[in-house]
Amino acid sequence: MTDASADPSETYAYLGPAGTFTEAALKQVPEAQGKTWLSVNNVGEALAEVVAGRATAAMIAIENSVEGGVTAAQDALATIPGLRIVGEYLVKVNFVLVAKPGTKLDDVKVVNAHPVAYAQSRGWLERNLPDHGHIPAASNVYAATSLFDADSNADAAVAPPGIVDQLDVEVLARDIGDNPNAVTRFVLVSTSKAIPPRTGADKTSLIVELPDDEAGSLLAMLEQFSTRGVNLSLIQSRPIGDALGRYRFVVDLEGHVEDERVADALLGLRRFSPRVLFLGSYHRADHREIEYHSKYDDEIFIEARDWLRGILSGEPEA
Amino acid sequence: MTDASADPSETYAYLGPAGTFTEAALKQVPEAQGKTWLSVNNVGEALAEVVAGRATAAMIAIENSVEGGVTAAQDALATIPGLRIVGEYLVKVNFVLVAKPGTKLDDVKVVNAHPVAYAQSRGWLERNLPDHGHIPAASNVYAATSLFDADSNADAAVAPPGIVDQLDVEVLARDIGDNPNAVTRFVLVSTSKAIPPRTGADKTSLIVELPDDEAGSLLAMLEQFSTRGVNLSLIQSRPIGDALGRYRFVVDLEGHVEDERVADALLGLRRFSPRVLFLGSYHRADHREIEYHSKYDDEIFIEARDWLRGILSGEPEA
Amino acid sequence: MTDASADPSETYAYLGPAGTFTEAALKQVPEAQGKTWLSVNNVGEALAEVVAGRATAAMIAIENSVEGGVTAAQDALATIPGLRIVGEYLVKVNFVLVAKPGTKLDDVKVVNAHPVAYAQSRGWLERNLPDHGHIPAASNVYAATSLFDADSNADAAVAPPGIVDQLDVEVLARDIGDNPNAVTRFVLVSTSKAIPPRTGADKTSLIVELPDDEAGSLLAMLEQFSTRGVNLSLIQSRPIGDALGRYRFVVDLEGHVEDERVADALLGLRRFSPRVLFLGSYHRADHREIEYHSKYDDEIFIEARDWLRGILSGEPEA
Amino acid sequence: MTDASADPSETYAYLGPAGTFTEAALKQVPEAQGKTWLSVNNVGEALAEVVAGRATAAMIAIENSVEGGVTAAQDALATIPGLRIVGEYLVKVNFVLVAKPGTKLDDVKVVNAHPVAYAQSRGWLERNLPDHGHIPAASNVYAATSLFDADSNADAAVAPPGIVDQLDVEVLARDIGDNPNAVTRFVLVSTSKAIPPRTGADKTSLIVELPDDEAGSLLAMLEQFSTRGVNLSLIQSRPIGDALGRYRFVVDLEGHVEDERVADALLGLRRFSPRVLFLGSYHRADHREIEYHSKYDDEIFIEARDWLRGILSGEPEA
Repeated sequence: MTDASADPSETYAYLGPAGTFTEAALKQVPEAQGKTWLSVNNVGEALAEVVAGRATAAMIAIENSVEGGVTAAQDALATIPGLRIVGEYLVKVNFVLVAKPGTKLDDVKVVNAHPVAYAQSRGWLERNLPDHGHIPAASNVYAATSLFDADSNADAAVAPPGIVDQLDVEVLARDIGDNPNAVTRFVLVSTSKAIPPRTGADKTSLIVELPDDEAGSLLAMLEQFSTRGVNLSLIQSRPIGDALGRYRFVVDLEGHVEDERVADALLGLRRFSPRVLFLGSYHRADHREIEYHSKYDDEIFIEARDWLRGILSGEPEA
Repeated sequence: MTDASADPSETYAYLGPAGTFTEAALKQVPEAQGKTWLSVNNVGEALAEVVAGRATAAMIAIENSVEGGVTAAQDALATIPGLRIVGEYLVKVNFVLVAKPGTKLDDVKVVNAHPVAYAQSRGWLERNLPDHGHIPAASNVYAATSLFDADSNADAAVAPPGIVDQLDVEVLARDIGDNPNAVTRFVLVSTSKAIPPRTGADKTSLIVELPDDEAGSLLAMLEQFSTRGVNLSLIQSRPIGDALGRYRFVVDLEGHVEDERVADALLGLRRFSPRVLFLGSYHRADHREIEYHSKYDDEIFIEARDWLRGILSGEPEA
Repeated sequence: MTDASADPSETYAYLGPAGTFTEAALKQVPEAQGKTWLSVNNVGEALAEVVAGRATAAMIAIENSVEGGVTAAQDALATIPGLRIVGEYLVKVNFVLVAKPGTKLDDVKVVNAHPVAYAQSRGWLERNLPDHGHIPAASNVYAATSLFDADSNADAAVAPPGIVDQLDVEVLARDIGDNPNAVTRFVLVSTSKAIPPRTGADKTSLIVELPDDEAGSLLAMLEQFSTRGVNLSLIQSRPIGDALGRYRFVVDLEGHVEDERVADALLGLRRFSPRVLFLGSYHRADHREIEYHSKYDDEIFIEARDWLRGILSGEPEA
Repeated sequence: MTDASADPSETYAYLGPAGTFTEAALKQVPEAQGKTWLSVNNVGEALAEVVAGRATAAMIAIENSVEGGVTAAQDALATIPGLRIVGEYLVKVNFVLVAKPGTKLDDVKVVNAHPVAYAQSRGWLERNLPDHGHIPAASNVYAATSLFDADSNADAAVAPPGIVDQLDVEVLARDIGDNPNAVTRFVLVSTSKAIPPRTGADKTSLIVELPDDEAGSLLAMLEQFSTRGVNLSLIQSRPIGDALGRYRFVVDLEGHVEDERVADALLGLRRFSPRVLFLGSYHRADHREIEYHSKYDDEIFIEARDWLRGILSGEPEA
């Protein structure tokens, strides 16, 4: 499904087709606008395009996705060398009920829906269409496109809101998902080693293996953060898979590798852990300024280094 | 889909229908054999049956499920009061390619498959059936049952191995999943407050909220474990959802609440955390004996209490 | 120097003779008033009287003494079994210059003084009596009493303020010590296992040995305190003496063994350490109310135990 | 008592006179041999000579001294700016009983002794000279020199072993101290900012103030050491004296400021503490090689910095 003629430095891979939540995430990326967008079938394909140099970046779901693949994405980032996260995007996960123009809600007897989307809007459907039937779809977008198949028996489809830009459908109902606050977190992944500039509202992602499985080694890992005032926004243990009881940790921390406190925590982590993978520093999707105690300011780190340098050089202390 | 006449103390709810991986997990439960099994559509329904007293227990996927719902399951356990985990079960996740009797692999042109199962066996399918088409199914089991629909165009289906007990199908290929080591972890959930007996190979599950989001509060939480030599086998942050940046932690620890070191850690945790939910102590699915340093033996805790009691009572020390 | 006829339950040993700073500490003990006071020569003798049952308690200097013996006192408490601290007393350490009645400061050519007291008032003496000579004395009190020896060459003596109650001397100058804030901390030591009542302004003294000399074992010890919000007011490493690099720690903590947070810290400590010696809980000499975070209130500990008891008994949670 | 004509770069101050334990420590300093030795009266004077530039260094007792002044020495190092410890020396503290030539032990009726030395050899004296009298002396050396005073009533003196080099005395008994293992630790203090070379058997001395007196700040300080595998050989709380309940800590750690793990711990400490005073890195008196886990090797620190530098520069990781 790749387009061999596309300029890889101008190509973005995403879980397609047009209309998915993943595409909605990609629409948030200013530098991707007007470039080639490469629709693929799953996370593995998306990252393979990037690794092979056929795409400059891939948009993948990394947390709470209704399109699946989150665990696969985390494990892929942990095991495929050379990948970096360069941006984070949030997409409100909600569903619309759509039909061919002219259809009314009362006419709907059969609903086409991806099984996961169906499960997540089942409450609304049972309340409003108590006698409906369900036809499964291979994806959220195909649920809607299949309405136009000649042999389709479905009267309506559960679809992402973006579907209205792709198809001539009528929206019979909005916000039919059972959880009105559902959000999926996406990351843009590339092989570029250039780090997005520090903004003060940044996040840094890491994969860390513990030196052993003794009680206390997780604690020792976290001390590397807390002793520098670095907050975590995500921590998740994942079995490494090579042996019983060994784990790696997916960690998101608040701050940028160019923040002194983060850089120093990374140094501590690298000394402590047999394997620590830097997945990138990037602007937070929520643009929220990182708050931290002033005792972890860059100046404090710089001053301490100056002080130590003075001692080591034999100069009098200030 | 509930059976009103069933004896709730003899009824087990599970994500059905017969043939799912969840049913395979339930088959591992000795006390469920010969009882009423209630097939439901999703985790929410399964837990609702238990809470309503219509089922004595529900089997739900809690980690790495290909049938979905893991995050929903974790969040449900965190928010629905009164639930307890009473058992843990592992099911090897693999798929078979099945067809109506007499079908040969070479005959297969169209494959029916749940979208997630399809994604996970896509590698095998593309290698062995490069020109196949895909028809989505609402579930892994329906993929196979639909082969017998009069109007079905599919020649084969991707299905769980258990399907052979349900349908008169022929297995065209086994182990077609792309990840040969994939395992899903299931838990049996009930409202019973009786705790399964301590076996020495136990696990305890908790939900813990941190007192605030300061750097260091996660560390302080983990100190409650490490200072008593209690190992964690799972830790996962989950946004609480009521405010930005607040997390709860899903924690599995090695040991039983009747182990002194675990009981003491729970005491420390309860004092530390504004909310800690005990989800249960239960036998580990892998039967692996817990290893811990002898300085955390029950006797050490008991001896220390005797010592303190002696001091407080004014008796001479030994 | 013991008085064999004294009732041991009514006898207090102290570093004498009358007039010492230690006697000034003993004067602060209400229950010692009107009882037999036994003057001894050093800390070892004082504690020996208590251990032998010839004295009900001994007053000894434990920190910042000008009369010496602090290290010896700490080591004695660590090694002599059965001793308990039952009270704490502070004495302002200052000196007066005294002489036989009729003597004027201008007349003073030779000063009798214990060498340590002399060192501590040397500044004043050199400024005010630049040409004086020094005769050493065996103790601060003997410095003054020797003025009345027939063959004494001294014109004045450096002595504790309490000397005026013992001898018919004239005070030529007050507050001649070089450090106006000097204070010595004394403790009253007995073999009674009865613990002084909790007042809210208490201190608890411990001797703790670390399990080994690895980096981190001191930290692990202190976690036992910090994780229960228990503050230390004194920590001091002392070589154990049986092997290179092994230390015991003299620890004073804020609170009473009947405070839940302190009791729990002691439990943790006892489990952690190969040897922990409870030296007593007693009212603080400065009467300062202990401040601690409300999350370490007794109620929190009691509530947590109730919660755990409910879980273990299989009762429903509140 | 200073010698104005002495070359300060060639002058060593010590608690004199010749024959003291402090002199015995100074005799262990190769570079001091053949230079001017300046005998002073106490620690304060010794350090004042150094600060004023009249002495190149001063030998002072810092732990377990029978000559007193240890607390004063610690507090002086904490408050007098510009001082550095450049060497550590151990002197076995024992006493000899000496007399004028021709005296026999049986002849001894009166013993001259510094009060502290007397207390420490009282056991031997009472066993061997049960009826002896005691005349106090201003110092251990004067106890012996006074034997030669015309009007002395003493028959023998308790004195340091070094006295035999100073006076024509006969040793009546050796090793009469009650504690056969007693050792005093001395340090050589100068204002030189040059740090003695790293030997692998080094010690580093610090004074650290805690940011506040909350439970946990001492723990946080020690984490700076333990997280880098740095062991402490001494820790002692000392009241700062400016306010109730504030403490500074006298800390000796194993290692040299040029060890990466020590340098990094100092950086962490400096960021953490409102005031940390580097008192020097110097060769250990016991020449014992520092043992530490290989994960704290210099190479580990250097490798981690290289790794971080690669990330920050945008170069591909190795």
